[in-house]
Amino acid sequence: MDAKQLIVKSVLDGWNSRVETANKLFDSLSDEDLQKEVSPGRNRGVYLMGHLALVNDKMLPLLNFGPEQYAHLDEAFLSKPDKSMDLPSVKEVRALWKNSNAKLTEHFNKLTPDEWFQKHTSVSAEDFVKEPHRNRLNVVLGRTNHLQYHVGQVALLKKK
Amino acid sequence: MDAKQLIVKSVLDGWNSRVETANKLFDSLSDEDLQKEVSPGRNRGVYLMGHLALVNDKMLPLLNFGPEQYAHLDEAFLSKPDKSMDLPSVKEVRALWKNSNAKLTEHFNKLTPDEWFQKHTSVSAEDFVKEPHRNRLNVVLGRTNHLQYHVGQVALLKKK
Repeated sequence: MDAKQLIVKSVLDGWNSRVETANKLFDSLSDEDLQKEVSPGRNRGVYLMGHLALVNDKMLPLLNFGPEQYAHLDEAFLSKPDKSMDLPSVKEVRALWKNSNAKLTEHFNKLTPDEWFQKHTSVSAEDFVKEPHRNRLNVVLGRTNHLQYHVGQVALLKKK
Repeated sequence: MDAKQLIVKSVLDGWNSRVETANKLFDSLSDEDLQKEVSPGRNRGVYLMGHLALVNDKMLPLLNFGPEQYAHLDEAFLSKPDKSMDLPSVKEVRALWKNSNAKLTEHFNKLTPDEWFQKHTSVSAEDFVKEPHRNRLNVVLGRTNHLQYHVGQVALLKKK
């Protein structure tokens, strides 16, 4: 295994194991639990789950995998704060989360190590020459961190 | 820049930017804020800050940089839950966090890309042949995720 293969494995293993942990966490929480705020006055679990699904969805165009699917939910989970508008049901948001991951996994599994080191779509070809670390793999690194940030918050909804 | 250099840069940039964000967050919170629970009945900010400092400290032996410095605080921040014993003052815990990062940075800056791909100390030479992704860089990847998990929780202490 060369360095590229090794690091692609590390990054994808990291992503997959955190998604798996997030799945177990969401599955362990009831719809009622997910309607609660993670701390008084803060986001509810269902908002964070939807937010994570939307951020997943936006990786599709960013990684050049195809168009996003949930642009109609941008306001609900990205541009507006929680409790400013009606959200889809918890059941629907659970499906958004699961489907967004299934879609990513399907594309992730097709890429070769070299393709992971290609540029993502929000960096220009000129800038990529100067900043070659702005590749697809780096996006997954950043998104794994983003996932963990919110999973740590949702974990506060677990019964002690 | 070859693949090794690129990915070492990505992983270290990721770590450094998250530590920087954590620093700003801790600095923005008063000692009194950090004595509060991130959500009712959960860990206090000061406990999480100390916990992160201890996990940093344990990277020293794990990455073969030298002995850990804070083993005397294992009970306070690792093996026992928050509120089971007296903790050092918030001021002292702030210093643990800062010092643990300074120590890591000092060592991180000395490693070559090839050295980042060497095994960490909790994997045997035999296992490393079969599982070469268990290298030093992979430890930093995992620890960045761990940091984010708890930073997401401490961020709940910010005034809205």
